[in-house]
Amino acid sequence: MTEKIITLLTDFGEEDWFVGSMKGVITSICPGARTIDLTHLIPPGDIRRGAFALRCAYRYFPRGTVHLAVVDPGVGSDRKVLVVRGGGYIFVAPDNGLLSYILADLKEKTIHHATRKDLFLDEVSNTFHGRDIFAPLVAHLAGGVSIEQVGPVCAEPVIFPLPTCRPAGNNRWEAEIITTDKFGNCITSLSNDLLSDIPGESRRTGIRITIRGEDIDIPLVSSYNSVERENLLAIGGSSGFMELAVNGVSAADRLELISGDKIILSLF
Amino acid sequence: MTEKIITLLTDFGEEDWFVGSMKGVITSICPGARTIDLTHLIPPGDIRRGAFALRCAYRYFPRGTVHLAVVDPGVGSDRKVLVVRGGGYIFVAPDNGLLSYILADLKEKTIHHATRKDLFLDEVSNTFHGRDIFAPLVAHLAGGVSIEQVGPVCAEPVIFPLPTCRPAGNNRWEAEIITTDKFGNCITSLSNDLLSDIPGESRRTGIRITIRGEDIDIPLVSSYNSVERENLLAIGGSSGFMELAVNGVSAADRLELISGDKIILSLF
Amino acid sequence: MTEKIITLLTDFGEEDWFVGSMKGVITSICPGARTIDLTHLIPPGDIRRGAFALRCAYRYFPRGTVHLAVVDPGVGSDRKVLVVRGGGYIFVAPDNGLLSYILADLKEKTIHHATRKDLFLDEVSNTFHGRDIFAPLVAHLAGGVSIEQVGPVCAEPVIFPLPTCRPAGNNRWEAEIITTDKFGNCITSLSNDLLSDIPGESRRTGIRITIRGEDIDIPLVSSYNSVERENLLAIGGSSGFMELAVNGVSAADRLELISGDKIILSLF
Repeated sequence: MTEKIITLLTDFGEEDWFVGSMKGVITSICPGARTIDLTHLIPPGDIRRGAFALRCAYRYFPRGTVHLAVVDPGVGSDRKVLVVRGGGYIFVAPDNGLLSYILADLKEKTIHHATRKDLFLDEVSNTFHGRDIFAPLVAHLAGGVSIEQVGPVCAEPVIFPLPTCRPAGNNRWEAEIITTDKFGNCITSLSNDLLSDIPGESRRTGIRITIRGEDIDIPLVSSYNSVERENLLAIGGSSGFMELAVNGVSAADRLELISGDKIILSLF
Repeated sequence: MTEKIITLLTDFGEEDWFVGSMKGVITSICPGARTIDLTHLIPPGDIRRGAFALRCAYRYFPRGTVHLAVVDPGVGSDRKVLVVRGGGYIFVAPDNGLLSYILADLKEKTIHHATRKDLFLDEVSNTFHGRDIFAPLVAHLAGGVSIEQVGPVCAEPVIFPLPTCRPAGNNRWEAEIITTDKFGNCITSLSNDLLSDIPGESRRTGIRITIRGEDIDIPLVSSYNSVERENLLAIGGSSGFMELAVNGVSAADRLELISGDKIILSLF
Repeated sequence: MTEKIITLLTDFGEEDWFVGSMKGVITSICPGARTIDLTHLIPPGDIRRGAFALRCAYRYFPRGTVHLAVVDPGVGSDRKVLVVRGGGYIFVAPDNGLLSYILADLKEKTIHHATRKDLFLDEVSNTFHGRDIFAPLVAHLAGGVSIEQVGPVCAEPVIFPLPTCRPAGNNRWEAEIITTDKFGNCITSLSNDLLSDIPGESRRTGIRITIRGEDIDIPLVSSYNSVERENLLAIGGSSGFMELAVNGVSAADRLELISGDKIILSLF
């Protein structure tokens, strides 16, 4: 049997014993599983950022991987536990929107709520379901328990509205900032596909961004250092969306943009 | 043979080559061992916080796990190297109090000082015993060297006084803050067991906290978001102790509490 | 077959999905490989610090380890991809100086540029070669592809001038600060070997440091706490070089020293 991969994405931080305890539980229940951290530095409670990070990473793992995401401001309340199978993967998360991108991505999927208490730790705390519910659950799933065995089918998982990008004229879109990354790059909702050459037209070299009514024209380039240091640029990003960046510093700070901000984009 | 787990807890941070070098040493000596990080972000030299983090995590790992903790302000001085076997685990740490909770937890235990230089790297630096002494030592222990082989029995390991919680009237205690976590939750020394219903009494719904002579009444709840955002709450925490928290922000900042602060707690 | 180790050193941070995605790619291509993080917190674009961290850690890993380092401000430009074999290891990095110490360390080595596109992901983004080029490349190398197969021999890899330490009189050197670590210790370019007793002379007990024309005399000790808290000390560091430190606080802040600063050192 090949080793089973379990990825972990949380907002638990790295200062405390939280993530380590989860790995202890997982390896106790399923010694053959190997855990790989996606990140534990999702800003506390930021479900949208966690959801996008998971969406960017999951497909690079081998089929059979179990992806666990825990950004769970409602821990201890009656929010449910979601288990999704699709695309060759299993996803586990609180049912709070954290799997919104995944559910949109997957054409065929099976969705259950996990309710079987014997798949959790004997003692379940009110405040640390990551260790007491989610860790043992993914360990059992990695160890062979099937999604049909964890609890009833879920008909309507919680999802949040995904970022939009609406055509608004010729090569013009009403878009938004999906999220920013640690370099301060601003990931827009404009797909890289729309930046490619359109038959019969010459290659695009720049983009006009309208932020809070103000226009900024910036070059559309293919590497961060093709502009001078501290200069703005637009680039087809690695997540599949166009990013706004500044060579060497934070575009989010420079442009005062945060997740959810509306912008208008016009290619020229 | 099943894979051997070695957990690592240090104050070395994650910016440098320190932890990576330790893992290199471990995997060179014991290729079958797998390392799992508890945390490397213990505040530099904070033995009490490291000790509590280890206490919270160790029992979630499978029997046979070797737990290494290095928070070692006395590195290079004549402090000794402690190896403890008990509860199915092996613990290794500088003999400076870092295993205080562990030694209190374990009813039966064997305690040695590690002195055998052939279990360390050939060249031992003055400043990085994590790599030169502790990493090779745990690798040898994971690889089959027994605790009796590492050096003489230790009769009196260094321990610090554990946090106390003294009854001071009916449902009233003189307690203290054990530590705070990364969310700013304040972990008190009041055991969750004392929050449970007492036969013949109705369920408790609140707690009066007296901090520096001032009384604050806060609800005793079972999830962080059962109060409004930015409101105080008390909750039975996942470490087995009652925590003071604020929904969405840091209780440690709000209440100006740090590790070691004395508080009086009265259930009502 | 023993498990293959791949170490990872980047400036990608831990907040995002970057490092996790790389591990997904690696484990998809080479399921038998195990990744170990050196650090992902190299300051963005700081090639010199990344280079030194790699130099400090690599030799502690077992022969056969593949070391991947990605600090790559030129991602998406025409900088090349370097693969080096030597000392029993394989090193992979952008050809931008990141392997300068390694290339100086290794007496015998084979150096190639990786150009074979079938060793990369099918789709290569402009901005994330860590995932699209470097991760699949090291996975293939760990899986058995030889360095000769990745592309043409590289005659002149990019290197930066290594820090120097020039004799300037009896027991006196013109040295520099190589880097600082997370504790604020300042690693100088003076080798520990020069601190040892010289036959016929008595043991050295102190060192005069001249920074920006000002002299400071500090004791040469063998543990951080052999001076009072907040006092300066010099010590033979774990990286093989003399460090300037302050017991309990940051020497870099106290002395206002950064990487590259020139200092004069005189043993007394």
